[in-house]
Amino acid sequence: MEYSDIAAMMGNLWSPLVAVTSRFQGKSNAQIAVGIAAASIVPTAPRVIIQIYKRNLSHGLIMESGAFGLNFLRDDQLGMISDFGLVSGTNADKLAGVEHRLGPSGSPILADCFGYLDCRVINAMDAGDMTCFLGQVLDGKTLGQGELSWWRQARRLLSAKVTEEWDRKIADEIEHSKTVMDDIDFAPWNPR
Amino acid sequence: MEYSDIAAMMGNLWSPLVAVTSRFQGKSNAQIAVGIAAASIVPTAPRVIIQIYKRNLSHGLIMESGAFGLNFLRDDQLGMISDFGLVSGTNADKLAGVEHRLGPSGSPILADCFGYLDCRVINAMDAGDMTCFLGQVLDGKTLGQGELSWWRQARRLLSAKVTEEWDRKIADEIEHSKTVMDDIDFAPWNPR
Repeated sequence: MEYSDIAAMMGNLWSPLVAVTSRFQGKSNAQIAVGIAAASIVPTAPRVIIQIYKRNLSHGLIMESGAFGLNFLRDDQLGMISDFGLVSGTNADKLAGVEHRLGPSGSPILADCFGYLDCRVINAMDAGDMTCFLGQVLDGKTLGQGELSWWRQARRLLSAKVTEEWDRKIADEIEHSKTVMDDIDFAPWNPR
Repeated sequence: MEYSDIAAMMGNLWSPLVAVTSRFQGKSNAQIAVGIAAASIVPTAPRVIIQIYKRNLSHGLIMESGAFGLNFLRDDQLGMISDFGLVSGTNADKLAGVEHRLGPSGSPILADCFGYLDCRVINAMDAGDMTCFLGQVLDGKTLGQGELSWWRQARRLLSAKVTEEWDRKIADEIEHSKTVMDDIDFAPWNPR
């Protein structure tokens, strides 16, 4: 099997572009993610699953705080792909100068976005290079009109400089994931 | 918060329509799912997350076999929504008369679909009413042309009888999920 054999399916299994926000002990952060899924059929108890790579600063903040915010982007907010996605929060405060408040979970919620979901972590699964967090949606609101932003379209709207930088970053992440994704601290699934 | 406040976001977090196949000790089954996400950025090690409700026959088969197949549907295969989604496999062989073979994971793979992913379970997370399975893709191929089938469009193509039956089934599942989704056998997430 080559990836090209399954790309038409896999390419449809990613989410809209989201700025994932987190905060622990006064340190706030934001990163870009497209690995988000709905995880509840009950309208009064909405839940989501998000994938966060262990190497990211956000991973520790979400682990420690048990909370995260999902801020869905509009196509006119693609500058955030550079601001949040191409800079590490370790030595920078990525939310300085970005209007936000803290939601009920304690996570930063952006004032300006398509809409947000403020979530409390209720379970987590180790996936080697990343952790899947199951989140209960405590609060949320759609603020924008029109369409959410998807990576496929967004890519065409970004400058050559940003897409090159993005591709370099992803290539580096892929190489790193290859070295750690099998390093999962659970026994292989054993049929009982 | 009302669900209508977040529907524009949540509605975009479900996957294309997939027939999830499974097999354990000679018993095969197929069910419909839309809770599937990509879970790897490494093209040579593709992974997916799928959500399977505990009440479904498929849940036990996947738990026992540690394997599942994802068969993505085309718009002209929506009859499978009734055949696989509105019938329980407990007393019926839903794959009788449907051409298929067993993939490397031991799961049934449909001969006719948009494409398939054959997966081995490598981890799982309890989510109360359902389990999230992390699957390594062992084999896969795109067989069809054009577009995958999504529930939003599919719904408009189904007969009134099928959509009514589907809505009744989902309403029953929502009521059941409400009673069990908090019944999770892990401690609430504790920030360390």
